[in-house]
Amino acid sequence: VDSHGIELFPHYVRALQGGRINPNPEFRTTIQGATATVHADHGFGHAAGAEAMSVAVDLARTHGAGVSVVADSTHFGAAGYFGLAAAEAGCVGLALTHADSLMLSYGGTKPFFGTNAVCVAVPCAGEGPVCLDMATTQISWNRVRRAVDAEALLDPGLAADPHGRPTREPTEAAALLPIGLYKGFGLAMMVDVLCSLLTGMPYGPQLIRMYADPISERRHLGHFFAALDISKFTDPSVFASRLKEMVTAIRYEPVAPDFAGVMVPGDPEKATELERRDEGIPIPESIFDEFVGLGRGVGMSLQPMSYGS
Amino acid sequence: VDSHGIELFPHYVRALQGGRINPNPEFRTTIQGATATVHADHGFGHAAGAEAMSVAVDLARTHGAGVSVVADSTHFGAAGYFGLAAAEAGCVGLALTHADSLMLSYGGTKPFFGTNAVCVAVPCAGEGPVCLDMATTQISWNRVRRAVDAEALLDPGLAADPHGRPTREPTEAAALLPIGLYKGFGLAMMVDVLCSLLTGMPYGPQLIRMYADPISERRHLGHFFAALDISKFTDPSVFASRLKEMVTAIRYEPVAPDFAGVMVPGDPEKATELERRDEGIPIPESIFDEFVGLGRGVGMSLQPMSYGS
Repeated sequence: VDSHGIELFPHYVRALQGGRINPNPEFRTTIQGATATVHADHGFGHAAGAEAMSVAVDLARTHGAGVSVVADSTHFGAAGYFGLAAAEAGCVGLALTHADSLMLSYGGTKPFFGTNAVCVAVPCAGEGPVCLDMATTQISWNRVRRAVDAEALLDPGLAADPHGRPTREPTEAAALLPIGLYKGFGLAMMVDVLCSLLTGMPYGPQLIRMYADPISERRHLGHFFAALDISKFTDPSVFASRLKEMVTAIRYEPVAPDFAGVMVPGDPEKATELERRDEGIPIPESIFDEFVGLGRGVGMSLQPMSYGS
Repeated sequence: VDSHGIELFPHYVRALQGGRINPNPEFRTTIQGATATVHADHGFGHAAGAEAMSVAVDLARTHGAGVSVVADSTHFGAAGYFGLAAAEAGCVGLALTHADSLMLSYGGTKPFFGTNAVCVAVPCAGEGPVCLDMATTQISWNRVRRAVDAEALLDPGLAADPHGRPTREPTEAAALLPIGLYKGFGLAMMVDVLCSLLTGMPYGPQLIRMYADPISERRHLGHFFAALDISKFTDPSVFASRLKEMVTAIRYEPVAPDFAGVMVPGDPEKATELERRDEGIPIPESIFDEFVGLGRGVGMSLQPMSYGS
């Protein structure tokens, strides 16, 4: 998932250097029954999220269901990472996060909520878990930036200008449209409610922007995780084999013209993983140079000839 | 919510008379930790769902989180009913159900999953709970039927013909499009996974159609409910008042041309409720006549002059 890979590394280094991310956080976890709150002490959201999902899975083993929230966090990367961790542990995994205010409000002229992410992952027989990891906007802001770079127009119905009017011109884009009009707006709201109101964190327009400058203020992000122990409901091997039967049936569905096939959530990522395990991970030269530069800046010696090898 | 009101009553009577719905079910509930399975014995889904959400709320009071699923159920009506019940009990409520295979698969030519519903409801200070209750298709099949009756075209991007091609002609519509392309398809899949694979019920195209004729076969529907006790995470009054602050801010957002305002999930239903508490619930004459006819058919004496009074 290129948008959440090495591309973000320079940003994370700046966030550490700027003081937003605490390099030595002390996580503090309080558990009540099947629920937990992890205070992340402004450390990496990736680490706090992994801790919180691990707690949720442990709670699910004991109680059948486990729910954990994270307070005082930072950007946690890809929601799918946490969902997959739960599914690999034999659970249904749910991971939610709020994000920068970027989604045009339905019926409004400007953004309130962010591209708030929803991930659900479930174990499947004979292959990796099936993992839905989606923003509640139709596209990510990355797609707008790539269209600017490529001097290409966006498809209709994806972005709005600073007055909230639909635009296909990526240089004019100021907001992203929700999926399904008011439905995506409502979903994004509920994600923010769970991430911010259960944790006491800010929400929507109150959130400090990910790319705010200077990068020193704490973002106080919140996340929400849940795990369900499948064995409390049914035989997990029956669950996984019926899921395999379902995804196989879907992949054999008749295909519409101009499509390569009917896919289930996570299929594109599984194909990319296979390809890249074989051929390596392509990195744009500009990102590679920035990465090497960051290393030199902290006194590391790197071998730029490894690029493209 | 007219689509889930008295309009469905004649259908429910036929389903009882046809033998699909068991008028005297014995619910059997098994609890393990914070999880429960309610075997509905083919009774009304409304009753089974109410029982299951009540169990989930009880589990949430004890454990902080409660998850219940329903097996061998029938149509449960509006998902919002159950979400609202949890929110009125001070919980976050989640209600999911699968439904007739009617959603065009993304990249495919025919439906696999249904209009599978997602409901999330949360308590709000100074007004009723905020309740998102949405199908994962952009519109319901009811909207298609109403367009047929009105001899009107559908908006683009809502329906597909029997070959999976987009159509605006409601008489040609054979499938409904998911919200957000592959995103709504993925959401619908995860709803079906939770409703069918945790309960051992059929899924997608395996489901007996709601309007199948004869109406004798059991549908074996599954539902999924969850409740979270807010007090295990934060002060519930702070949660509810911060939500009130959030919804108030959203309702004061600048409004786009051609819109009456920015709304939060459930606002249209709250407005309708106020109006109808005052003015009564309008019932189309054809539905009223059918209702009266059903009553006469079972020997009830009804006063048709009450219509429109």
